[in-house]
Amino acid sequence: MHPVITLLTDFGHQDPFVGTMKGVILSIVPNVEIVDLTHQISPGDVHAGAFALHTCYHYFPENTIHVIVIDPGVGSSRQALVVKTENYYFIAPDNSVLEWIFHEHPDARVYCLNRPNYFLEVSHTFHGRDIFAPVAAHLAKGVKVEDLGEKCTHFIKGDLGTVKTLGKALHGSIIYIDRFGNAVTNIHSSQINDLNITNALIKGNRVDSFCSYYSERSAGESLMLVGSHGYLEIAVNRGSARENLGLQTGDQVVVHWA
Amino acid sequence: MHPVITLLTDFGHQDPFVGTMKGVILSIVPNVEIVDLTHQISPGDVHAGAFALHTCYHYFPENTIHVIVIDPGVGSSRQALVVKTENYYFIAPDNSVLEWIFHEHPDARVYCLNRPNYFLEVSHTFHGRDIFAPVAAHLAKGVKVEDLGEKCTHFIKGDLGTVKTLGKALHGSIIYIDRFGNAVTNIHSSQINDLNITNALIKGNRVDSFCSYYSERSAGESLMLVGSHGYLEIAVNRGSARENLGLQTGDQVVVHWA
Amino acid sequence: MHPVITLLTDFGHQDPFVGTMKGVILSIVPNVEIVDLTHQISPGDVHAGAFALHTCYHYFPENTIHVIVIDPGVGSSRQALVVKTENYYFIAPDNSVLEWIFHEHPDARVYCLNRPNYFLEVSHTFHGRDIFAPVAAHLAKGVKVEDLGEKCTHFIKGDLGTVKTLGKALHGSIIYIDRFGNAVTNIHSSQINDLNITNALIKGNRVDSFCSYYSERSAGESLMLVGSHGYLEIAVNRGSARENLGLQTGDQVVVHWA
Repeated sequence: MHPVITLLTDFGHQDPFVGTMKGVILSIVPNVEIVDLTHQISPGDVHAGAFALHTCYHYFPENTIHVIVIDPGVGSSRQALVVKTENYYFIAPDNSVLEWIFHEHPDARVYCLNRPNYFLEVSHTFHGRDIFAPVAAHLAKGVKVEDLGEKCTHFIKGDLGTVKTLGKALHGSIIYIDRFGNAVTNIHSSQINDLNITNALIKGNRVDSFCSYYSERSAGESLMLVGSHGYLEIAVNRGSARENLGLQTGDQVVVHWA
Repeated sequence: MHPVITLLTDFGHQDPFVGTMKGVILSIVPNVEIVDLTHQISPGDVHAGAFALHTCYHYFPENTIHVIVIDPGVGSSRQALVVKTENYYFIAPDNSVLEWIFHEHPDARVYCLNRPNYFLEVSHTFHGRDIFAPVAAHLAKGVKVEDLGEKCTHFIKGDLGTVKTLGKALHGSIIYIDRFGNAVTNIHSSQINDLNITNALIKGNRVDSFCSYYSERSAGESLMLVGSHGYLEIAVNRGSARENLGLQTGDQVVVHWA
Repeated sequence: MHPVITLLTDFGHQDPFVGTMKGVILSIVPNVEIVDLTHQISPGDVHAGAFALHTCYHYFPENTIHVIVIDPGVGSSRQALVVKTENYYFIAPDNSVLEWIFHEHPDARVYCLNRPNYFLEVSHTFHGRDIFAPVAAHLAKGVKVEDLGEKCTHFIKGDLGTVKTLGKALHGSIIYIDRFGNAVTNIHSSQINDLNITNALIKGNRVDSFCSYYSERSAGESLMLVGSHGYLEIAVNRGSARENLGLQTGDQVVVHWA
């Protein structure tokens, strides 16, 4: 079985940045499966990238190497990391993009990438090509994670925000909006499983329906449901909560129960 | 030779939905070739997805497994299907997205996906991940199609619309608009091969040139031609029929001959 | 090790054009690695495609077959080429899209694709599917490049424009704008390495900072730097030079030194 490397970036599809990374990888380790997670994270939005990663990394085979390049500080003195959890590897800049990984795996082993023999010649603006891709390829080829860099003790763990309970209401926020315009909150299903949810207030809108699936409501009607990632989301059936309700990341949401 | 699985969805590229499906597949069957057909079908547009599939599925190796997830009814009681034609497999929700396949292969064998042992835990909103991807992977791994579900007798065959002949004119409609803005009609080349086409009327525009290729006309000029899929299309050389002529799916077109 | 085929087109991701090409390739040569470089080149912009190719083709393993389909003249009498340089193959229409390749490899061997036994049935509008993909597949399968067509002596070499020195100023132009809005000039780092660059004038904007990486400046500030491709570019940190400075391909730039 070939090792799997996934790529998650904010590079978009206009330029051959992602293709270049794949060329670098295949030049080092020909027998590898490379999978795109997404390359359409808004430029520099490390929190959206972090959540996107959180929703999918664990669906991959054991030992998959996840490479995340959302890197507005490229070229500055920010560190580059390789992280080992029980089942996976993560290679990324040190900038919160692994905040969900560190939250779920507080015992993850963290190393700073500081062995230039595993890099290409390093430019100031494209470490995806010069550092992250070749390091991932060497890892896939069999180099041990502890040989890729030194143990790292100071790195950015990130901050996932908190959900507060005030009376019979949960106060959370929108952390991600998907392609369909569904607005994902930071309220996990485990926090509402036993509650009789009555409505949500968000940006002057009141959402009264708590559903199991989108088409439970008529086209154009707003609703709440637990999305496939396990978090409460605000949606509009066959519409877009982003557009129809004017929602964006960071918006506060208050969810009431009876 | 590895089995081939193709993916055609309306998931877009912003979120890691497609990447997640690939992770699920690779976790079940590592040695498989996964090919993206397109993920940019307009959300929920099953007819556009159906036509896109129609234009390309037969270019793939025999036994390719085509997975189509355009699924506005996800979570409701709509069925999920696996279909076997002479050379290919199709896995899709029961909602017209296979209308061209059923039209071309009236003898296709159709099964309802109702064996949860081939599913992941099923969410209400992401059957691409929980049902369609794992079923495709098990099929690629060697599970027989008749073991994936029960024979299905009631399913949606779809309706491709008709082209009417009235005097010396064919009355059809626009069924698909591609990335270049070329507007594809439902009039097949076999219906016009022997005719001396003179012009087409569409949305107040009159198109007078019937060409073999786009650059036969000057930049900005409109024309008709038979597209690479075999259907008559309305185009503007180095322009966009969608934008320049204001065309959209469903628009009526009348094609005259002498 | 499997042969590698890359695809660079202006087909976008909306339609299954690229997927169709992959189906054709896999039907001819199952054991091949297919990598997307980009499919979002502006329709027909051969110069942008040429530059994109230039920045990445050499990161791939030796003998990689690069297929470029930006082909506004499809169906007309323009030739189709296969080109062999020391390490790579290139398959493309004869229309300047290989201008950087011919510039760097004046001794490249060039052949016209004129052996229909290596084509599918040829449509007038989709030679990516009917000619370029099958030829690439046959090449990957072991057919010799000189068997794919006749030696070609008349073909379009392209014109990369020139950078002029007038007094203490370099006069160049914008040749490419990337997804982040960074505007790449045709001034190579080798032309400015020993100079004390003071400022650049472009479209009424004066850019005073010559930096090593983007985040050297505050968010929203404009700067010059040498991009990862080796050319001087105009950028706005955490912004877009395209939008913030109103830049586009072809704009003249004057770079002064002290």
